[in-house]
Amino acid sequence: MHGIEIATIGLSVEWRTTDEEFVNGLERLVLDAKAASTLGCRTCTTYILPSTDQDAAPFMAKATTRLRTCAQILASYGIRLGLEFVGPHHLRTTWKNPFIWNLQQTLEFIDAINERNVGLLVDAYHCYTNEISHEELGRLTADQIVHVHINDAKNIPVKDLLDNDRLYLGEGVIDLIGFLQTLQKIGYTGAVSQEVLTIEPPKEDTESLIKKSAENYAKLFHAAGIN
Amino acid sequence: MHGIEIATIGLSVEWRTTDEEFVNGLERLVLDAKAASTLGCRTCTTYILPSTDQDAAPFMAKATTRLRTCAQILASYGIRLGLEFVGPHHLRTTWKNPFIWNLQQTLEFIDAINERNVGLLVDAYHCYTNEISHEELGRLTADQIVHVHINDAKNIPVKDLLDNDRLYLGEGVIDLIGFLQTLQKIGYTGAVSQEVLTIEPPKEDTESLIKKSAENYAKLFHAAGIN
Amino acid sequence: MHGIEIATIGLSVEWRTTDEEFVNGLERLVLDAKAASTLGCRTCTTYILPSTDQDAAPFMAKATTRLRTCAQILASYGIRLGLEFVGPHHLRTTWKNPFIWNLQQTLEFIDAINERNVGLLVDAYHCYTNEISHEELGRLTADQIVHVHINDAKNIPVKDLLDNDRLYLGEGVIDLIGFLQTLQKIGYTGAVSQEVLTIEPPKEDTESLIKKSAENYAKLFHAAGIN
Amino acid sequence: MHGIEIATIGLSVEWRTTDEEFVNGLERLVLDAKAASTLGCRTCTTYILPSTDQDAAPFMAKATTRLRTCAQILASYGIRLGLEFVGPHHLRTTWKNPFIWNLQQTLEFIDAINERNVGLLVDAYHCYTNEISHEELGRLTADQIVHVHINDAKNIPVKDLLDNDRLYLGEGVIDLIGFLQTLQKIGYTGAVSQEVLTIEPPKEDTESLIKKSAENYAKLFHAAGIN
Repeated sequence: MHGIEIATIGLSVEWRTTDEEFVNGLERLVLDAKAASTLGCRTCTTYILPSTDQDAAPFMAKATTRLRTCAQILASYGIRLGLEFVGPHHLRTTWKNPFIWNLQQTLEFIDAINERNVGLLVDAYHCYTNEISHEELGRLTADQIVHVHINDAKNIPVKDLLDNDRLYLGEGVIDLIGFLQTLQKIGYTGAVSQEVLTIEPPKEDTESLIKKSAENYAKLFHAAGIN
Repeated sequence: MHGIEIATIGLSVEWRTTDEEFVNGLERLVLDAKAASTLGCRTCTTYILPSTDQDAAPFMAKATTRLRTCAQILASYGIRLGLEFVGPHHLRTTWKNPFIWNLQQTLEFIDAINERNVGLLVDAYHCYTNEISHEELGRLTADQIVHVHINDAKNIPVKDLLDNDRLYLGEGVIDLIGFLQTLQKIGYTGAVSQEVLTIEPPKEDTESLIKKSAENYAKLFHAAGIN
Repeated sequence: MHGIEIATIGLSVEWRTTDEEFVNGLERLVLDAKAASTLGCRTCTTYILPSTDQDAAPFMAKATTRLRTCAQILASYGIRLGLEFVGPHHLRTTWKNPFIWNLQQTLEFIDAINERNVGLLVDAYHCYTNEISHEELGRLTADQIVHVHINDAKNIPVKDLLDNDRLYLGEGVIDLIGFLQTLQKIGYTGAVSQEVLTIEPPKEDTESLIKKSAENYAKLFHAAGIN
Repeated sequence: MHGIEIATIGLSVEWRTTDEEFVNGLERLVLDAKAASTLGCRTCTTYILPSTDQDAAPFMAKATTRLRTCAQILASYGIRLGLEFVGPHHLRTTWKNPFIWNLQQTLEFIDAINERNVGLLVDAYHCYTNEISHEELGRLTADQIVHVHINDAKNIPVKDLLDNDRLYLGEGVIDLIGFLQTLQKIGYTGAVSQEVLTIEPPKEDTESLIKKSAENYAKLFHAAGIN
């Protein structure tokens, strides 16, 4: 009615802690999947923290099994699951043991899960902090990408960028035009959601932020030659 | 408290009809699995009808995918899924196309599903109507059997036995002693449930039927040398 | 050197008969996969006959398990497996029991196999004999298609078209321009191989056939607006 | 002819290093599986080193995918794959990053691999160095165990026991009688192989070692009440 589309839902299941918490989330997952599917939403996403207090190898085994079950449930509703790798360097040591944070590792995680409806959530900020070139991004096929986040980064050394200190599109140094053009070149036709996390709550009111976002989107997509 | 144990729950999901009915059952499956697991029940079972009005090959593909999802959900709760092959000959032509009804076919179905927690529900009546020898049954390993049904058959030609015309233990012609001894020899330690289907509702009252069943069980297990 | 690329290899494993024949083919599959991968070929294909002398449901279960193993082996070499549905009506009753022959059934078979590298071989002749509209074809995503065959059909009733009586591109009645445009619209960028089966060996010499094929391809792709 | 049975073969594929080495091993795996199957051998085993120079989480993902493919190939030949956890403490820090070394972690690894023919290789030395109680071991089901190793440990603190400094049965402090009785109680009926690693090559000749082993086996099994 208002030209609004729900691009994705977050995975509500807690797949990072205990078996008990995991199974307790399955009922809600079924309800979420049903609701999303009813509303025409066909993707669900979750992020992978780059480090963990758990032992890394056993946690990877557990995560593989649990996300496989989530993927199977989602598949029953025609929903794909997108895994987001998280690039900022500080998070790689925030918890005791390194886990995974880059593109290649996430593709290997997806192979281990081994379900047909699992792919990537590609976030411009995490690509930038991983220093993924457009060439590398362009080697993906469209079907490997379930969802895309877009945002911008401050002009400071990559290794100092904080996960929760991002900028609005066009206010930073990420080559977002190249990013979008690469995604278009490989045939990605899904949604591109803005995800801007900030340390302080934004001072501008919601109305202004929406207006600014809309203008930034329009400018950026125009510059990228994408209608 | 009363020495009662819930051996198994039935799979409530409708996996034999439409995609819509299937996904509509997933919420209840999660609730069933949670309840069963809370009550210490670790198996769930479903039966496979020997024929179907659907095209047989596409139905097998669908059934494989759907039961895989059910198995994954059940596995999250530590519950195994047992598939019951159904032997009576008349059911092989009750619906338009033959599906599967014997032990070997069911093992191949389980291979196609390819989940670690899927096994057999072995029913004495279905073994008898499939003319499965104790030698063949004895080649199974205990872990392939999720649950066992026991019951007896009338003294008429095997091909004329009706699915819903079974007898109480010891009242018919099935070599139940050999059946139980075979299961014990291969190390099966799970539950053995009585399943007697009759054309007319039984005339005896519940109390008497329970008493009769208990006596039949005691006599049979004693004769089989199983305590 | 000569601008030649090997688009695909055929699956050499016999997945349609006995377990013994199947496993006997695995060694060659590994060698084929290695060779193909060395030569830069990244797809392997096999066709599904529309009927079978085997019982349909058990054969579907077996086929699912066997093609899963083939897919896993191929995946180790970065090779995808494409399944070709076969449309001509006469083959649906050539053998005793109907199996599968259309797009939807093949997608469900692929779901049952449940490996990430399995997709479709889309053949223009089989789409035509299944009366698949461009709209239906256009609902596929590019990643679901592993390989494409192109060929043409005689101007006789669809139900009378023989599998081995096909025409060269442009000599028949299939709307190949629409077919190619649909594939391009959904982003398919893989190879499109000519597959023309004829009852009699062609009378023209190889040189002429190659020349004719090249001309037909050029004319067709030009007409479809694909460079 | 001589009452000799081949209990297991080692997994020849290199699943711990590069993709290239892995795929290069697949041809031999197929040949090994064929040979083993011809000789009536139905199990294949590999060990998991407790630490690794690779990043632990990505290595777990890779290992999951690779062992799944090996398991699938082996399954085609009716062969099960047993994973051996390795207990000695010094190996947990021999390489840069901890991987997995105990029973629970290995079961979770097996869940991640998610193939029906994968289970445990249970080794008495690794149970002892993990301080696995007979009660914990007894909670396994027989089908979870693909193969068993038996050997003995020096009377020094558990944390100082070296992987390659084991003793012959009955010469050390492991309660092997309890170990065997536990395995029998849960219904394990497979082979129990002796695996004694020593720092120096044994000084006794092969003949004597075989004789000693046979006597130790006889004595131990007799003491355990297993015929």
